[in-house]
Amino acid sequence: MDLNQLSDDLKSGDRRALAQAITLIESTREDHQAEAQALFTELLPHTGNAVRIGISGVPGVGKSTFIESFGLHVIGKKHKVAVLAVDPSSKRTGGSIMGDKTRMGKLANHPDAFIRPSPTGGTLGGVARRTREAMLLCEAAGYDVVMVETVGVGQSETEVADMVDMFLLLLSPAGGDELQGIKKGIVELADLLIVNKADGDLLPAAKRAQADYKAALRLLTPAYGEWRPSVELCSALEGTGLDNVWQSVESFTATMKKVGMWDAKRASQAVAWMWKEIRERLQNAFSAHPHVATQLAAIEKKVENHILAPAAAAQELLGLFLGKKA
Amino acid sequence: MDLNQLSDDLKSGDRRALAQAITLIESTREDHQAEAQALFTELLPHTGNAVRIGISGVPGVGKSTFIESFGLHVIGKKHKVAVLAVDPSSKRTGGSIMGDKTRMGKLANHPDAFIRPSPTGGTLGGVARRTREAMLLCEAAGYDVVMVETVGVGQSETEVADMVDMFLLLLSPAGGDELQGIKKGIVELADLLIVNKADGDLLPAAKRAQADYKAALRLLTPAYGEWRPSVELCSALEGTGLDNVWQSVESFTATMKKVGMWDAKRASQAVAWMWKEIRERLQNAFSAHPHVATQLAAIEKKVENHILAPAAAAQELLGLFLGKKA
Repeated sequence: MDLNQLSDDLKSGDRRALAQAITLIESTREDHQAEAQALFTELLPHTGNAVRIGISGVPGVGKSTFIESFGLHVIGKKHKVAVLAVDPSSKRTGGSIMGDKTRMGKLANHPDAFIRPSPTGGTLGGVARRTREAMLLCEAAGYDVVMVETVGVGQSETEVADMVDMFLLLLSPAGGDELQGIKKGIVELADLLIVNKADGDLLPAAKRAQADYKAALRLLTPAYGEWRPSVELCSALEGTGLDNVWQSVESFTATMKKVGMWDAKRASQAVAWMWKEIRERLQNAFSAHPHVATQLAAIEKKVENHILAPAAAAQELLGLFLGKKA
Repeated sequence: MDLNQLSDDLKSGDRRALAQAITLIESTREDHQAEAQALFTELLPHTGNAVRIGISGVPGVGKSTFIESFGLHVIGKKHKVAVLAVDPSSKRTGGSIMGDKTRMGKLANHPDAFIRPSPTGGTLGGVARRTREAMLLCEAAGYDVVMVETVGVGQSETEVADMVDMFLLLLSPAGGDELQGIKKGIVELADLLIVNKADGDLLPAAKRAQADYKAALRLLTPAYGEWRPSVELCSALEGTGLDNVWQSVESFTATMKKVGMWDAKRASQAVAWMWKEIRERLQNAFSAHPHVATQLAAIEKKVENHILAPAAAAQELLGLFLGKKA
């Protein structure tokens, strides 16, 4: 593969090159991984110029409709929008890619938008890592608003909050009852809550939900002293309230930049990501070490049978790994 | 220290020897740690003969009163009861030890009971590890019911559930409202829910809470196909309902043993504990490696400034750790 050509095409905003680069990042083949990291390192100086927005919400809340309407609204403000999904349970099939493109058809067909479904397979951490790198590739390709969508059931939300600048939580007008369905931890991650479906018959319920969530938020400690999460109403279907959401994004961005939190947060996210990589690689190297690999099963068996204490077993295996290294 | 003497005294059920051994396990001094592990390995064959019960509940639910009443009830059934606390926020002071002994005065003074407050300092994981080893020391000293108490605010519950056979969640008669205060994940850990304070004026409320929690439990997937968590009423103050709780413990124990889950769970807990130790020691060895220690700050700085990609940084540091080992 001609990485220089790919890099140049990507930087010029070519969507096919971007898609190809993300595929390379997602590949588990070793030669691809080496190429991907070379490409990624080359493009790194061209990243960082987007607002990174995480969007979560339980199934049925209207995430796809919201992302499509909101994405088109933001494009109307002269931005370029990329949408990535983190769904560790997704299986990559032709169907699922079509699924993503179909459910956001208008956005997918817009020349200033790029939609990418979730990478498949591997651990949640693996999916998140590839999504994080894909996010930066989108930035290098000139997308200045990147939305990362999660499935909203609580596993991937922390991972996504750790890679974005701002985390939005979509809520339905069902209100109080729903608060119990959403894990409290997810509400605590949110920089902005959005009650969707605030239209027609549901408008009064949506307003009540807004009041309920505002009351609930008062019980939580905000992540930043300078930003108090608010609760906005919108109807993705009718296109109302989207401008308030975008204004909140801009206001959050301006506030964070003013107090120096914008860069500080990104810096600490990058360092945390490095440590995550280190831990994962350490454990892989450990398990793959020939002396460890030879002894592991027998030692594990002794621990299982309570003949060997876990700490003593760990010490013995660490000795094999650290001491007898070739 | 004469470890053989200590070991013999402990095995004979001497409470002072048990307290001394736990202090040794909790010490962070390296020579103490070596002695503690030698002692622990020696005593390991004498462990495993207790029912290990985790007890959690938010502050104010009456945990101390429950543990005291329940502990005395169980002692009345010819058992020996040890109580350990996991509270990573606790500071070890004369006051806090006195506090634990005072708040469970009758139990603390009973010859068939042993009460130990939480080890202080260190990470939650460290506190949990020392509590886990203390639990096994109690078994070697002949305590056949070990209760591990957690503070019930959500951080240490998973740690405790991972070291016990059965997890009890204490609830107040406040019912539905309280369900929101307790993280859903904690309810999911519970093998038995107990509504305390089911006495006097609060009895009707306690019965309503019992019904509410029973309904809520139907929405959760039980951890074992063979055991459906139930909701019992009790009054620790008046001593009512405690026998139902103990019968549930015996019934749970019998069921788990019958289906082979009892030993299987303990085996997998021991292996998980070993891996936790391995991960922790790996990261310590990594950070302490001279080449890593020399370069780490500079590399971290590059990652912070987005000059070096986190994955590339991890690869570089791993290379220093694995490649240049003396």
